[in-house]
Amino acid sequence: MNRITIAEAAATVHGERSPLHDFLSPDSIAIIGASADPTKRGYKAMVGLIKGHYAGAIYPVHPKLAEVLGVRAYPSLDALPGPVDLALICTPAATVPGILEECGRKGVKGAIVLASGFKETGEEGARLERAVLEAARAGGVRVIGPNTSGMFNLHKKVNLLDLANVKAGDIGFISQSGNMLLSLVLEAEHNGHVGFSTYVGPGNQTDIGFNDYLRYLGEDPRTRVATLYVEGFRDGRRFLRVARETTLKKPVVVYKSGATEEGRKAASSHTGALAGSYAMTVDLLRQMGVSVVEDSDEILPVAEGLALLQQARGKRVAVVSDGGGQATIASDRLAEAGLTLAPLSEETRRRLAEILLPQASLVNPVDVAGSSDANPALLADCLRIVAEDENVDSVFLVGMFGGYYTRFAENLLGGEMRGAEAMIELARATDKPLVIYSLYAPVKPPALRRLHEAGLPVYASIEHAVRVLAALGERGIHLATRGQSEPAAAPEPDAAVLAAFTAAGEQGRDLFEYEARALLRAHGVAVAEERVARGADELAGIAAHFGEQALAMKVVSRDILHKSDAGGVKLGLRGEAELRTAYDAILSSCRAYAPQADIEGVLLTPMARKGVEIIIGVSRDPIFGPVLMFGLGGIFVEVLEDVAFRSIPLSRHDARSMVDQIKARRILDGVRGQVPVDTEALVDLLLKVSGIVSAYPQIAELDLNPVMAYEDGYAVVDARVIVDAGEEGKS
Amino acid sequence: MNRITIAEAAATVHGERSPLHDFLSPDSIAIIGASADPTKRGYKAMVGLIKGHYAGAIYPVHPKLAEVLGVRAYPSLDALPGPVDLALICTPAATVPGILEECGRKGVKGAIVLASGFKETGEEGARLERAVLEAARAGGVRVIGPNTSGMFNLHKKVNLLDLANVKAGDIGFISQSGNMLLSLVLEAEHNGHVGFSTYVGPGNQTDIGFNDYLRYLGEDPRTRVATLYVEGFRDGRRFLRVARETTLKKPVVVYKSGATEEGRKAASSHTGALAGSYAMTVDLLRQMGVSVVEDSDEILPVAEGLALLQQARGKRVAVVSDGGGQATIASDRLAEAGLTLAPLSEETRRRLAEILLPQASLVNPVDVAGSSDANPALLADCLRIVAEDENVDSVFLVGMFGGYYTRFAENLLGGEMRGAEAMIELARATDKPLVIYSLYAPVKPPALRRLHEAGLPVYASIEHAVRVLAALGERGIHLATRGQSEPAAAPEPDAAVLAAFTAAGEQGRDLFEYEARALLRAHGVAVAEERVARGADELAGIAAHFGEQALAMKVVSRDILHKSDAGGVKLGLRGEAELRTAYDAILSSCRAYAPQADIEGVLLTPMARKGVEIIIGVSRDPIFGPVLMFGLGGIFVEVLEDVAFRSIPLSRHDARSMVDQIKARRILDGVRGQVPVDTEALVDLLLKVSGIVSAYPQIAELDLNPVMAYEDGYAVVDARVIVDAGEEGKS
Repeated sequence: MNRITIAEAAATVHGERSPLHDFLSPDSIAIIGASADPTKRGYKAMVGLIKGHYAGAIYPVHPKLAEVLGVRAYPSLDALPGPVDLALICTPAATVPGILEECGRKGVKGAIVLASGFKETGEEGARLERAVLEAARAGGVRVIGPNTSGMFNLHKKVNLLDLANVKAGDIGFISQSGNMLLSLVLEAEHNGHVGFSTYVGPGNQTDIGFNDYLRYLGEDPRTRVATLYVEGFRDGRRFLRVARETTLKKPVVVYKSGATEEGRKAASSHTGALAGSYAMTVDLLRQMGVSVVEDSDEILPVAEGLALLQQARGKRVAVVSDGGGQATIASDRLAEAGLTLAPLSEETRRRLAEILLPQASLVNPVDVAGSSDANPALLADCLRIVAEDENVDSVFLVGMFGGYYTRFAENLLGGEMRGAEAMIELARATDKPLVIYSLYAPVKPPALRRLHEAGLPVYASIEHAVRVLAALGERGIHLATRGQSEPAAAPEPDAAVLAAFTAAGEQGRDLFEYEARALLRAHGVAVAEERVARGADELAGIAAHFGEQALAMKVVSRDILHKSDAGGVKLGLRGEAELRTAYDAILSSCRAYAPQADIEGVLLTPMARKGVEIIIGVSRDPIFGPVLMFGLGGIFVEVLEDVAFRSIPLSRHDARSMVDQIKARRILDGVRGQVPVDTEALVDLLLKVSGIVSAYPQIAELDLNPVMAYEDGYAVVDARVIVDAGEEGKS
Repeated sequence: MNRITIAEAAATVHGERSPLHDFLSPDSIAIIGASADPTKRGYKAMVGLIKGHYAGAIYPVHPKLAEVLGVRAYPSLDALPGPVDLALICTPAATVPGILEECGRKGVKGAIVLASGFKETGEEGARLERAVLEAARAGGVRVIGPNTSGMFNLHKKVNLLDLANVKAGDIGFISQSGNMLLSLVLEAEHNGHVGFSTYVGPGNQTDIGFNDYLRYLGEDPRTRVATLYVEGFRDGRRFLRVARETTLKKPVVVYKSGATEEGRKAASSHTGALAGSYAMTVDLLRQMGVSVVEDSDEILPVAEGLALLQQARGKRVAVVSDGGGQATIASDRLAEAGLTLAPLSEETRRRLAEILLPQASLVNPVDVAGSSDANPALLADCLRIVAEDENVDSVFLVGMFGGYYTRFAENLLGGEMRGAEAMIELARATDKPLVIYSLYAPVKPPALRRLHEAGLPVYASIEHAVRVLAALGERGIHLATRGQSEPAAAPEPDAAVLAAFTAAGEQGRDLFEYEARALLRAHGVAVAEERVARGADELAGIAAHFGEQALAMKVVSRDILHKSDAGGVKLGLRGEAELRTAYDAILSSCRAYAPQADIEGVLLTPMARKGVEIIIGVSRDPIFGPVLMFGLGGIFVEVLEDVAFRSIPLSRHDARSMVDQIKARRILDGVRGQVPVDTEALVDLLLKVSGIVSAYPQIAELDLNPVMAYEDGYAVVDARVIVDAGEEGKS
């Protein structure tokens, strides 16, 4: 089971405290628009606080009523007799800026704006939303929403949603859909075990964004796992930073909607969210150690598993089963999820053989084959034996435990209860997670209820149980590698390169290719030598310099971005005569293509020998900031979209994992008689690119396309750097 | 809701009746090894029959007891006073052959062999299993199992499993895992609606295989959907044929284990099943109209949906929702499942606008945005409006219907019940399926219970609901296209080709490439002209014949299979001199490579111009018989395994669908400035290959690798035919 280590607890204590505690754990709450009409939110919030036995001050604010639900009401915020930590604003959108000004005067710390009708509805709403933000900033009031479903903090007995039957517990939930909360609450109520700590609907995130809420949940001692339903991030870059820190302390589970164009459109009309590429978002979240779930019905099972179980050291799972079919299915799902069936040691198999019937299968998945029919507690013994195997990272019970007494004989109930106690004891004693799937889970027999009460989750779906095992393994590996692999530091900027950026900025252009190549070379990237000819008369000398090597010739012009389209590229040239012919052809073709183009000359560089084509691209994503993309060239990027993304700066682990992630990984290992390429050189290249981008904020985009990867090293064939005009202006 | 048409009913009536009815719907049952010990199967089966009020004769057979559980027992089968349709054999493996001989003498029609210890345990068990089959065949007894969990037929009140609380209903289930049955039964019990008709565990399928059981379920009038958990098929070819017929009558749902190597190993140790390629199996099953589910927790939801709802005409779904988050998730899942959000007509949007609040979103997914908060029955009106839209094939309600009265106000229960009645009425009136997801499904509120009772399934998972919608759409499209697209007929075999097969057979070799090309050409496949030079002196004439065309030269030898490896291929040759040089090089290189090789000469053919490389391969799969594979060449097949499979013969629809199925489909449409290729020509080629393989049983394997696909047609660059020695012998 999960234990917070002393180091982790210390990290929580010593970190800078989020200002959100002041009003997400409030000692006084004003309800603006409190109401006696049961259909109104101003009524429901009152009821939620009163029925929930909230211990702080409740201040209904109503222009006319003297009391609401037996609580003394006040005509305005100014009239309240004490300070207010949190204001719940239940009034229509148009009233909100004025009320926030009042809140500011009163010293209210945070306000929840329930109304919709802001930026999710169009330009007029967006104007009103800006007014909300201005009023809040002016008065020093932090804003939850607008267009939010509200919040609760059950350990503080603050329930502004009037949700019945929500159990206080370990799961913190931040969701851009109130119905998603409702769905999880109903599922949890039904499963009878999981509870919630704090819920917030960030709505349009006009002031407080997901990153702020995540930091709060990371610090909240009552939250064991932070769970998020996200339609769109406002400040993705900051979110990634907070996620990187928070996952060191506790698990973070994210379901991100917008996996498809259809989903992105739906999200946009719902919360006005601008969602970026889904694949990129998933990669970046995982880089930070976030457990990303991709099916909505996996959110609660995975959150529950991460809350209750401790992480696994790795991905080697031992399956103990009392039935063939489910063990077969589990084997398929584990392999698909990237987990492996742990090879059991000889000692383990010997110990299993001692207690099982001869027909049992001792190879993982272990099938007890009837050995437990008369003694279900035997399953716990098997689990203990495999848990003690060095080769095993996590233990998975698959079958009908809990149902023996109904399936076989009523007198087996005692054995089942003993088995449950032994499993609880094992879970306490071992440092490996014990995940239980039972086909009897839907009917909640006594042994499974006992496990659940003791904090051992029992899953009714093999698929969900496997997702939990995968999340536990990934989390364990992330924590282990995070310590060893720090993000790459930025190198010292090079004076000549800085001068090139300045020149480019002054001339309002991007870097010329030769400048981009110089930039790469200055920071240790292997780039072939090049020469620029600024007139035909320079070709003879360049031809002599390169000798017998075949050369590529490319136009150098600030005005020609797509050199090939302009006829500005000639390949495989040898000797002065060929260079001259090519030069004339390029110049006439480029002049025809772009008559006004300022042509500086041509770049000459030796042809790269054939290798595996790689693409490395960097862009500054509007949501996530600088992001590096890696993939194989050509159809792999353009048709198969087989690429990996990481937020810059990358650690060595990040770089290696992105090389391993692509589906075409096997091509790098050498297929169809090809030799394997030097992936360590590619990892170094990725780290160097990451460092360069960190060092030069002037880089808006950087593309190395293609890079030829070889058995020994690589060659950058084409390099392009787009300058960020704004950044250059600043420097 | 589902209706069996008259044509479908007629197909059931006029088909040849499965012999399995005789004992799967038995009028008399002998229990061999009947027992009074509650832990024994011979006891449980007795209890199941007695408690289930089985109306037929029950004959306990026991060497000593005079009665078992109050039923008169007999010392042997011979002693029984009446005929026996079905014998349940509960005794150990070694006794089974002898008992089956007795069964034969008694005229028993079918026997269930529960014992394990047969081929799943190794060679000795396999020997015993052969003895079982021999005894059964000799006596004319059909065998279920061995190594089976048993069977039930609930409408006949035969329950040989003593499963408590199994409700009789629509789902027939054949499962190589008894625990999978148990799992579905518990899930169904918990959901409170679905019931079962017949269950059989085929076990090792020594006599009766999945194909026989499927035929039986297809004919069984009490089964609305045939559902199968399969670890391995024994006669996959026959299964495909039965599936093709059965899916025309009723839905067939298959979960096939062994998606991974790990799963195949686990299955093999469980039922001794030899599973073929999972991707191939899935493709072939879908070709036959089977609804393949890939997650075990989708089996029951999909089976239930197909049992209760009628198929959709297509894949255009209208979503009606009362909450943004779930609508967003549904949009993502629908798109991922290959379904589309139906574009709603202007008329539909006008009608929706009339009844919804102004803030409602009328674009699919429709979000009523609070319009139903005070009147949940409004949702039913929205569903009716979208169901009446011509652009809509199926209707999907997403949200919190059923929970309004707990979430908002108790007096909304009436509106919810009215809404439920209106939905039931709509489902009856429309020919489009209505699929309902509610986040209140886990707590089963009254309105959802009412829907369920009326035969409308309600799903607790968006993911499961979307799988049901996909299955309904795929089934509708399959039924619509099956009528229009018959499998390609085999052409008349060509005399010269038959002679080539005879010669190859006599010489114990495969076809030479020129013979394979002649075979293709004889049946209308476009193959470039070729010449074979059987000596250097023939090269001059061939050079003159082909003129300026660049030629490929390939060695012709029965002993050299891998021509390139042997240095037996030279490309881009022009004129006699180049041909002579190449000829000498090929001969010396091949002689060095295989000194004993019998070299007949070299084949010369014009070089194909560059196109998109395609691979077409045919093999005779040991499980499924002749199977055609299609994919793009090179890494697409070898690294990405991006291929499609179809059972031969293919219909035009099959051929077209396999071209559309591959992930690299976009490359055929033209990417990176390429023109699109002529996919209709590829479809024709696939159909011709299918016909050729049907016409010549002598073909063991056929490979066209590569085929160049062009804007206009294609060119077969290399053809290889492996001869089936056995088949040639037979002809």
